[in-house]
Amino acid sequence: MDVRQLLEQVKTGKVSLEEAERYLKDLPYEDIGCAKLDYHRSLRSGFGEVIYGPGKTVEQIVQICSHFAARKANVLATRVSPQQAEAVQRVLPEAEYEKLGRTLTLRFDAPRDLGFVAVCTGGTADIPVAEEAARTAEFFGCHVERIFDVGVAGIHRLFAKLEILRKANCIVAVAGMEGALAGVTAGLVENPVIAVPTSVGYGASFQGVAPLLTMLNSCAEGIGVVNIDNGFGAGYLAAQINRLAEKSR
Amino acid sequence: MDVRQLLEQVKTGKVSLEEAERYLKDLPYEDIGCAKLDYHRSLRSGFGEVIYGPGKTVEQIVQICSHFAARKANVLATRVSPQQAEAVQRVLPEAEYEKLGRTLTLRFDAPRDLGFVAVCTGGTADIPVAEEAARTAEFFGCHVERIFDVGVAGIHRLFAKLEILRKANCIVAVAGMEGALAGVTAGLVENPVIAVPTSVGYGASFQGVAPLLTMLNSCAEGIGVVNIDNGFGAGYLAAQINRLAEKSR
Amino acid sequence: MDVRQLLEQVKTGKVSLEEAERYLKDLPYEDIGCAKLDYHRSLRSGFGEVIYGPGKTVEQIVQICSHFAARKANVLATRVSPQQAEAVQRVLPEAEYEKLGRTLTLRFDAPRDLGFVAVCTGGTADIPVAEEAARTAEFFGCHVERIFDVGVAGIHRLFAKLEILRKANCIVAVAGMEGALAGVTAGLVENPVIAVPTSVGYGASFQGVAPLLTMLNSCAEGIGVVNIDNGFGAGYLAAQINRLAEKSR
Amino acid sequence: MDVRQLLEQVKTGKVSLEEAERYLKDLPYEDIGCAKLDYHRSLRSGFGEVIYGPGKTVEQIVQICSHFAARKANVLATRVSPQQAEAVQRVLPEAEYEKLGRTLTLRFDAPRDLGFVAVCTGGTADIPVAEEAARTAEFFGCHVERIFDVGVAGIHRLFAKLEILRKANCIVAVAGMEGALAGVTAGLVENPVIAVPTSVGYGASFQGVAPLLTMLNSCAEGIGVVNIDNGFGAGYLAAQINRLAEKSR
Amino acid sequence: MDVRQLLEQVKTGKVSLEEAERYLKDLPYEDIGCAKLDYHRSLRSGFGEVIYGPGKTVEQIVQICSHFAARKANVLATRVSPQQAEAVQRVLPEAEYEKLGRTLTLRFDAPRDLGFVAVCTGGTADIPVAEEAARTAEFFGCHVERIFDVGVAGIHRLFAKLEILRKANCIVAVAGMEGALAGVTAGLVENPVIAVPTSVGYGASFQGVAPLLTMLNSCAEGIGVVNIDNGFGAGYLAAQINRLAEKSR
Amino acid sequence: MDVRQLLEQVKTGKVSLEEAERYLKDLPYEDIGCAKLDYHRSLRSGFGEVIYGPGKTVEQIVQICSHFAARKANVLATRVSPQQAEAVQRVLPEAEYEKLGRTLTLRFDAPRDLGFVAVCTGGTADIPVAEEAARTAEFFGCHVERIFDVGVAGIHRLFAKLEILRKANCIVAVAGMEGALAGVTAGLVENPVIAVPTSVGYGASFQGVAPLLTMLNSCAEGIGVVNIDNGFGAGYLAAQINRLAEKSR
Amino acid sequence: MDVRQLLEQVKTGKVSLEEAERYLKDLPYEDIGCAKLDYHRSLRSGFGEVIYGPGKTVEQIVQICSHFAARKANVLATRVSPQQAEAVQRVLPEAEYEKLGRTLTLRFDAPRDLGFVAVCTGGTADIPVAEEAARTAEFFGCHVERIFDVGVAGIHRLFAKLEILRKANCIVAVAGMEGALAGVTAGLVENPVIAVPTSVGYGASFQGVAPLLTMLNSCAEGIGVVNIDNGFGAGYLAAQINRLAEKSR
Amino acid sequence: MDVRQLLEQVKTGKVSLEEAERYLKDLPYEDIGCAKLDYHRSLRSGFGEVIYGPGKTVEQIVQICSHFAARKANVLATRVSPQQAEAVQRVLPEAEYEKLGRTLTLRFDAPRDLGFVAVCTGGTADIPVAEEAARTAEFFGCHVERIFDVGVAGIHRLFAKLEILRKANCIVAVAGMEGALAGVTAGLVENPVIAVPTSVGYGASFQGVAPLLTMLNSCAEGIGVVNIDNGFGAGYLAAQINRLAEKSR
Repeated sequence: MDVRQLLEQVKTGKVSLEEAERYLKDLPYEDIGCAKLDYHRSLRSGFGEVIYGPGKTVEQIVQICSHFAARKANVLATRVSPQQAEAVQRVLPEAEYEKLGRTLTLRFDAPRDLGFVAVCTGGTADIPVAEEAARTAEFFGCHVERIFDVGVAGIHRLFAKLEILRKANCIVAVAGMEGALAGVTAGLVENPVIAVPTSVGYGASFQGVAPLLTMLNSCAEGIGVVNIDNGFGAGYLAAQINRLAEKSR
Repeated sequence: MDVRQLLEQVKTGKVSLEEAERYLKDLPYEDIGCAKLDYHRSLRSGFGEVIYGPGKTVEQIVQICSHFAARKANVLATRVSPQQAEAVQRVLPEAEYEKLGRTLTLRFDAPRDLGFVAVCTGGTADIPVAEEAARTAEFFGCHVERIFDVGVAGIHRLFAKLEILRKANCIVAVAGMEGALAGVTAGLVENPVIAVPTSVGYGASFQGVAPLLTMLNSCAEGIGVVNIDNGFGAGYLAAQINRLAEKSR
Repeated sequence: MDVRQLLEQVKTGKVSLEEAERYLKDLPYEDIGCAKLDYHRSLRSGFGEVIYGPGKTVEQIVQICSHFAARKANVLATRVSPQQAEAVQRVLPEAEYEKLGRTLTLRFDAPRDLGFVAVCTGGTADIPVAEEAARTAEFFGCHVERIFDVGVAGIHRLFAKLEILRKANCIVAVAGMEGALAGVTAGLVENPVIAVPTSVGYGASFQGVAPLLTMLNSCAEGIGVVNIDNGFGAGYLAAQINRLAEKSR
Repeated sequence: MDVRQLLEQVKTGKVSLEEAERYLKDLPYEDIGCAKLDYHRSLRSGFGEVIYGPGKTVEQIVQICSHFAARKANVLATRVSPQQAEAVQRVLPEAEYEKLGRTLTLRFDAPRDLGFVAVCTGGTADIPVAEEAARTAEFFGCHVERIFDVGVAGIHRLFAKLEILRKANCIVAVAGMEGALAGVTAGLVENPVIAVPTSVGYGASFQGVAPLLTMLNSCAEGIGVVNIDNGFGAGYLAAQINRLAEKSR
Repeated sequence: MDVRQLLEQVKTGKVSLEEAERYLKDLPYEDIGCAKLDYHRSLRSGFGEVIYGPGKTVEQIVQICSHFAARKANVLATRVSPQQAEAVQRVLPEAEYEKLGRTLTLRFDAPRDLGFVAVCTGGTADIPVAEEAARTAEFFGCHVERIFDVGVAGIHRLFAKLEILRKANCIVAVAGMEGALAGVTAGLVENPVIAVPTSVGYGASFQGVAPLLTMLNSCAEGIGVVNIDNGFGAGYLAAQINRLAEKSR
Repeated sequence: MDVRQLLEQVKTGKVSLEEAERYLKDLPYEDIGCAKLDYHRSLRSGFGEVIYGPGKTVEQIVQICSHFAARKANVLATRVSPQQAEAVQRVLPEAEYEKLGRTLTLRFDAPRDLGFVAVCTGGTADIPVAEEAARTAEFFGCHVERIFDVGVAGIHRLFAKLEILRKANCIVAVAGMEGALAGVTAGLVENPVIAVPTSVGYGASFQGVAPLLTMLNSCAEGIGVVNIDNGFGAGYLAAQINRLAEKSR
Repeated sequence: MDVRQLLEQVKTGKVSLEEAERYLKDLPYEDIGCAKLDYHRSLRSGFGEVIYGPGKTVEQIVQICSHFAARKANVLATRVSPQQAEAVQRVLPEAEYEKLGRTLTLRFDAPRDLGFVAVCTGGTADIPVAEEAARTAEFFGCHVERIFDVGVAGIHRLFAKLEILRKANCIVAVAGMEGALAGVTAGLVENPVIAVPTSVGYGASFQGVAPLLTMLNSCAEGIGVVNIDNGFGAGYLAAQINRLAEKSR
Repeated sequence: MDVRQLLEQVKTGKVSLEEAERYLKDLPYEDIGCAKLDYHRSLRSGFGEVIYGPGKTVEQIVQICSHFAARKANVLATRVSPQQAEAVQRVLPEAEYEKLGRTLTLRFDAPRDLGFVAVCTGGTADIPVAEEAARTAEFFGCHVERIFDVGVAGIHRLFAKLEILRKANCIVAVAGMEGALAGVTAGLVENPVIAVPTSVGYGASFQGVAPLLTMLNSCAEGIGVVNIDNGFGAGYLAAQINRLAEKSR
């Protein structure tokens, strides 16, 4: 029963004032106007369901994916282990597993046709995180250009890609170790850069703290930072920005 | 002399091949095609000049502002001390100083008419940082809705503003202490949230480390984090996103 | 207009379904059932208003206190500077200022008569934080026994107070430097210990990090820890526990 | 021989003054009045014995449990490995092992009938820590309501449980990653919230440091924090508070 | 009344069993055998009273010192500000104030004649902490050899003093910045080295964390470390060791 | 087509001004004058190729090495696992693998004959990192003197090698735990010391943080520090300095 | 050839002035007077050889032990793995291995008969570190009293052992988690306390940082702290102090 | 008396064997062969005296400078306050004070004519540290090219200076905030880069920790890092490298 129905029944006397009062008081806020709230927020926003793999058993993953598949809901599962993926694919052969970024996707309709996102990495070891970001952005309808291994130690590699970087609605810059890629890139383009520090490195990189601090302290404007190794978060944010950019096309 | 002129002179023989080669080799990359590069990047992107106040003498600030004013260039100066502001205003009475956020602006034309950004704070002590963000976004053409003192300890205050939050192209969430505002807000809206941790708090807030970590670890998707107290960075990023959103209106 | 009134007007047709729906949708959750929500949560819980002094101007503090005084609402203001206190007392001479703990209280009725809380400190330098805790607990109706300077370096001092400690409904243990007081005390009593690390110390106490970690890692059971120097938080929690203990007397 | 017996024998001359003096001087403080002190403090407080599993061999665990079982003493063992549990159950089939929270319990009488504690988690990965808390509280006689996966990223889930949360004598809020659950909950209820940060998360959660700081810095009053992943400590503190609340029923 | 008296009165019936039982139960442990426990531990150990200056008002310092002076008790006050010292000296002209190390001493008898302690520093900026250590050791009866500015960057300076270092019963090594003095010294002598990291330095010395870690990680055996800048603690420990060494002379 | 060719074609009219302008604008900066830029920077500097092993599959390592071998390019691969090494050696038997330092080298010509570098370690456990440094310096043409296990806890071992240390163009000092070797050495020689902290140690060495801080805070002048365990970086820097020293021989 | 021999040969002309000069100049400092310096410092001090196990191969350990055994030198090897121990015992069956503390000892004469050291632990999980300390102290000739599991959460356990603690020349206090044992103990005795933080604990104990800070910040005087888990260092320091105490017996 | 003289006297019998033995044993190592060791190491290396200003009184600075001036020794004093400088200049008017970098120099001869060092900064706020480096390098005989405000956020500024950077024997890269300048520069040149992190920045720059970590983790080879704000250390190291490079000209 939604709020409108409730109010109608109050008006007609089917529901007493006391009952209505209590009902409204206890309801979750969002339920008042929107039955879809029982579904995950990402679905509500038209973005499809997202599942976070770690801490879920193989059985749970299979069950959740099957549940959504039955409803023809698109699903993106992140940080999925090969064991989890294999089990899902046994039941849902249409599920697609990307090994490097450990994403598993299940699509029942074509994604929105959003604009263009560039995903860059400083080195080759950052690619798994970048793939997570890229697959996430693609799942939500973005076109993704992968520009890998363009770290600032050999800055000409980045410059060789400058034209394409400048055309993107937004750029996801993935880098470990010193993490300077985000700042240098942001200094070269006009659109937002989403910075993803990675745990790639050793010693004083402190599992990603060094690139995280580098990115937060960047002198270049136009950078938003996400958690260490959080490719998904970057891809999601990129899709949101892209959707805004493409809204009125 | 820009690249075009150089090439013309190579063609006509006024400049030898050797000279042209050396010239092109040594030139900064961006200078090749764009004389505007002598100007700050933000100007190039149509966003106006930005000056960072700290570490500059009163005389330097006055000189720089005067220089831009002479060229009718719009200027935003951040973290400007009252002494610096007063000195500029003595020479340029049209300069506007906002005390809380310590921004000084100088406009010679109407800003672009970009869309709508909401700037929220957890508490009243976060307002200076929020004002820096708001003034920055406004300088770059955004409409800003200020929604202050809506921290999660009294979450009904945030909910009372939900409708307006959901209409914004993007939200700047400014919070110190526990910093949960960004995550809770991102869970309630569809558009990007730019999270600004502040150094407001004491003890285990460690001058903003606590809200910084909270924001980086948020379970809600769609959050980009900037440096502690970096209101300017958040306002700039909000303006970039807003510009993308409004591009095609 | 509260929810009950609204529902009555829906029933009688004074308010249309559409209006009622929108109203309910936009209302802060808590407002639905409880008009007192415009007031601070602490008031709602019968505990009186609380004001946090830092970041407020002298004028703001005076204004807020006057506002509450006009409504005969009890007020506790914490971390109030002598300047702020003096200004309030000029307008409201009945306001009481406690210098050490920097609390300012304004009472218009007798507090609840809750049970007994013991507030201990490791050293004399911890007393300001302890006074903040004690005054807070007293404001909310607790009886407070102050047991100061009973640090574990001379443990007989603590033992001399054991009988009284064991009678308290709960104990607030305030300590800087090594911060072992909370753990040793919890090992001696049956009721909860609220541990308050203080920034008292030097060198490797790291402004309260050392006692904070000590308290979090205590081997004794029955300890809840609050932020460094957070006397108010400890006093509030003690009052909550005390209220539970005394509920059914 | 307890103190009373000793004194009687001094009076009758069976024990010389010298002997009695030495005996009293060397005795542990608590032994003076209470022979039960040879037993664990938790037993003395009527709460039953507690054993901490890590660092004990399978043989040791079995031996300790058997020892208590022979005396019909209730036992709670925490962080018990499956191997340890299996070995105990082979000898004491009545021992109950809860896999998720890794607690093992042995009861010989019905627990006290204390009041009602709510144990909440932010996500599903926090459940093991929450189960440790819940089982501990139950072992000490509390009724526990489990409210799992109500993190603030989808805050309507928490609101749907508000009524039950408000009825609890105290709430244990278990959360990793950003850890905002405790603060948001404390802002919605009147009774104490015991906050348990968990090591769930990655990157800048730093194995639980992020939620720990969030919880310590919460703007909402009425929160006591325990160590990262310390479900037992939270359950114990909840039971203490509950016992106070139920004392006089 | 001490334990012996009590027992006698129990025997003679002057004190009832019940009274005696309660009395023994509540007494602080240490009081049972030793009335001196009302005095500070350091006095009990024949070492004289110690007062920690910070956090005490000028009046309190004067009062405490006067109190001890009236009883002809020796007093060492540490971290005494010039203001505090001046006020004490106005009342007690015989009090001696050492400016660099900020110690104030009041002696009424000759100190014990303990053996020989060497106090070394890495640089001249470490001398205040070293003086606190030296004065403390002297107060407790040690002979002190001051060996300042013998840091390892010019290691011949340390070697020039090797003979005297090897004769000391123990060595206090005071150093900031890299803090390698303690380890190098311990590698050259047979007796214990007490290492005192200082907050002297800048940048990555992190107010003494760098030398603290260096000293804790020293490869040389025979080092005990005290808190950053804790000259008093080092001097006290040196005196304890010296007393052991000299006991049987 | 390089810049010279382009300019010639502009002069002869084969390329239009517009085309040339666009071409120059988009080119990576370094490509303008130097086709070798497609190669790695280290090659450009005459130093040979460097490959970082971690994060590369066995196949990738073999492929890259084969690629260079086909062009007779010298290769240094660092942090190569035994598995990776074995696979390369199966295809390229001339490849040399050094187990301790995990370097794999492939030489097709004699290296430059640069001067003399000393590589020292504090302990035996630091040798793997030192070997990485030594092999790197040798690969780039240095003569290397290995001086291992000369930590400052037994400083005579270092002094026994002083003459040879003073002859080196530069010294690589490798040390974990307290890390004082670099500072003591720099105090004894005239030439630069490259300090390499290692993760050797336990407890408060924090995986190399302790020696890193020691080295950064050294009172001795003439020290440049590299990342924890970064033997390669130290060897490379030593070779650069050595090359400068030997340039004009 | 020692210095005396050299000088004699200079006198008799067997060695030229030039040769002698060079020899003296290059010699390690300690070699000048003491041929034993080729041996480890600990031997020089009459304390026997010490070997640190980690990072040494089984073969190396066997070789070193055999080398010393051949010379009838006493050896203490610390942190020896069972594999290493077994291999040594196969060759040297008289070698004694203590599993918990992982020490291996080889004695060829009776140790010195030094005085009495007490080694305490907070919990049972600290025993391995305590055993390392105890065995080390015993190897160097101390009598050791083991007082385990006397943590401050049940402080009567510590008090029960007070008499013996007060008789010890020095006390080694080993504790993880909160680490308050050292401070409480130091407050109860007159002699030095050597504090050993352990990595026992979880969450905010940060692998021993919490007890390390507790111990460094102790309010009780007379504490020297060693590295986390450094049982050997504590035992060595205890033996040094004990030797001083017993020197003149 | 130097070693040669001693040996001659031993030979002639003027000094007994016993006397000579003791003398050699106690002498500082370096004194044996080198009387210059009484002077500071930097003097010994022909580099002139260096004085560190902080912690020295105005009188001490004047006295030390006068002492050296009397001996016509060149002096470089760093971190000299204006008060200290003024006092020195009153006595020694030839002393030169550079305000920004706070260096004071006193030269009595022309410096060596070493090669060319480039000193770069990321921003204008880094200039004081850069000036300290530059003046230091100049004092020791280097030619210095100052290249300020070439941070990577506007990377064309750096590229505009590439030719001059590539000609330098070594480069000092001074940068705060993100600190990426060192890595990008090292990727563009062949010679060593000395990286100086500065405390310029705010929030998550943590007083220079962020650029320090960035520099230590740089992917580009050929970087040696010094302490935060350590301009002197960088200038000194640059001079050492330069001296090596210029040795054989």
